Amino acid sequence: MTDLRSLGKSVLATQPFSRLLGAELVSFEPGRVVLALNARPEFFQQHGFIHGGVLSYLVDNALTFAAGSVLGENVVTVEYKVNYLRPARCDRLMATAVVESHGKRLAVCRCTVVAIEGQNETPCVIGQGTIAVQG
Amino acid sequence: MTDLRSLGKSVLATQPFSRLLGAELVSFEPGRVVLALNARPEFFQQHGFIHGGVLSYLVDNALTFAAGSVLGENVVTVEYKVNYLRPARCDRLMATAVVESHGKRLAVCRCTVVAIEGQNETPCVIGQGTIAVQG
Amino acid sequence: MTDLRSLGKSVLATQPFSRLLGAELVSFEPGRVVLALNARPEFFQQHGFIHGGVLSYLVDNALTFAAGSVLGENVVTVEYKVNYLRPARCDRLMATAVVESHGKRLAVCRCTVVAIEGQNETPCVIGQGTIAVQG
Amino acid sequence: MTDLRSLGKSVLATQPFSRLLGAELVSFEPGRVVLALNARPEFFQQHGFIHGGVLSYLVDNALTFAAGSVLGENVVTVEYKVNYLRPARCDRLMATAVVESHGKRLAVCRCTVVAIEGQNETPCVIGQGTIAVQG
Repeated sequence: MTDLRSLGKSVLATQPFSRLLGAELVSFEPGRVVLALNARPEFFQQHGFIHGGVLSYLVDNALTFAAGSVLGENVVTVEYKVNYLRPARCDRLMATAVVESHGKRLAVCRCTVVAIEGQNETPCVIGQGTIAVQG
Repeated sequence: MTDLRSLGKSVLATQPFSRLLGAELVSFEPGRVVLALNARPEFFQQHGFIHGGVLSYLVDNALTFAAGSVLGENVVTVEYKVNYLRPARCDRLMATAVVESHGKRLAVCRCTVVAIEGQNETPCVIGQGTIAVQG
Repeated sequence: MTDLRSLGKSVLATQPFSRLLGAELVSFEPGRVVLALNARPEFFQQHGFIHGGVLSYLVDNALTFAAGSVLGENVVTVEYKVNYLRPARCDRLMATAVVESHGKRLAVCRCTVVAIEGQNETPCVIGQGTIAVQG
Repeated sequence: MTDLRSLGKSVLATQPFSRLLGAELVSFEPGRVVLALNARPEFFQQHGFIHGGVLSYLVDNALTFAAGSVLGENVVTVEYKVNYLRPARCDRLMATAVVESHGKRLAVCRCTVVAIEGQNETPCVIGQGTIAVQG
């Protein structure tokens, strides 16, 4: 378990885009990952809410990490879908993704992102996607 | 047409996340938008390709701009789906989104992102989503 | 609760396609529905598994019923997405859909379909979609 | 080309669910398929429009046939997404699916369904999905 977490942290650290946004690996176990991101002014869209692109980044990365925990490190996102539940105005975002089903080459995962402001946690995005072993 | 383009540029300029990434409005007309982004080292994932989160940002924003051209400025992305066609290693990304159908409150749009490297343009992502008038 | 169930049964009974396939309303409460279908030879595809179109029908209808329980009877499916987890060879299918979030005009729902064969229940499809009040 | 068409027709003929609905293979070439279905009273939902399950069946099957034309016969639908553009009241439905991109094991396809009533053809559904070689 510790090894998986260390591996996850090192993969995240080698993603320049994840470093740009400041993503953190909160927990990582077989079939489940939690990623977090502190909100910053540069993450907003024009109405003062977190831009969908930031939320999508979190979903995409969380789905892929969850799949990687069961398929191995060499995975790519094939596709995913998100529904935005409500605008996110928050201090912090937390994305939890779980593997719903997987074979040797493909995994299907789901993700929920919650917006955290003070003591309040509000689901703001749900997603579902497919991840494949590369090559 | 010029007014729509000016409006689009000003909306893009008021999105801090779009400024962070450096998105440009290439063209904007009723029912169709083209957004572009120059690749930067900080946009990569761990294998040297553009991170899916950057590609998703482009799809999300292009879908919403296309919808905004027919529904008006006050729109939000309800949901969308992307398929990654191949890894993108490129100098520049260009996202074209078109409105496939719309009523007064909802628009359905499709988007294709091409990766540009020198003279080569390669489609790397396709997406489809729903945008709604807010409130 | 009883009224909702009666209403659901009568809506299902007025859908010729649901009658053609033989769909049953197992339970219906605010924010949650369970629909079921007995497998028949004419539901198969060429490899002896339930055709994806049958599974999609169940997901589509379950998502819309779940949304209708909170938005009212006058709803239409805007869009949805399904992932097939594994081929379904079974006696019976059961689709459970829940409302994840909703406003006055839109609801976001998720659905899981399980294939039942004897004592075994195996998830075979997951879906996620958007339902809107009509007009 | 003729062989592909013959193969397609024989696959369709071995799908009991396609026979139940009466689907026809209109054309089939590498990377592109057209399937059609005559509307029947038992395909309706409660408002007199074609049920989403019928439309989804067409999209699912068309996506998979299109992919099969480039990946070979032994394919399964991994996932897909549909947007319903407008209610379909029609005599006939025609679904055209094309392969947008494919490797050896996966294909990404798009589909458009038009509702035909007399001389009028109206797009009523668009879809996008992923198909994989089985096993």
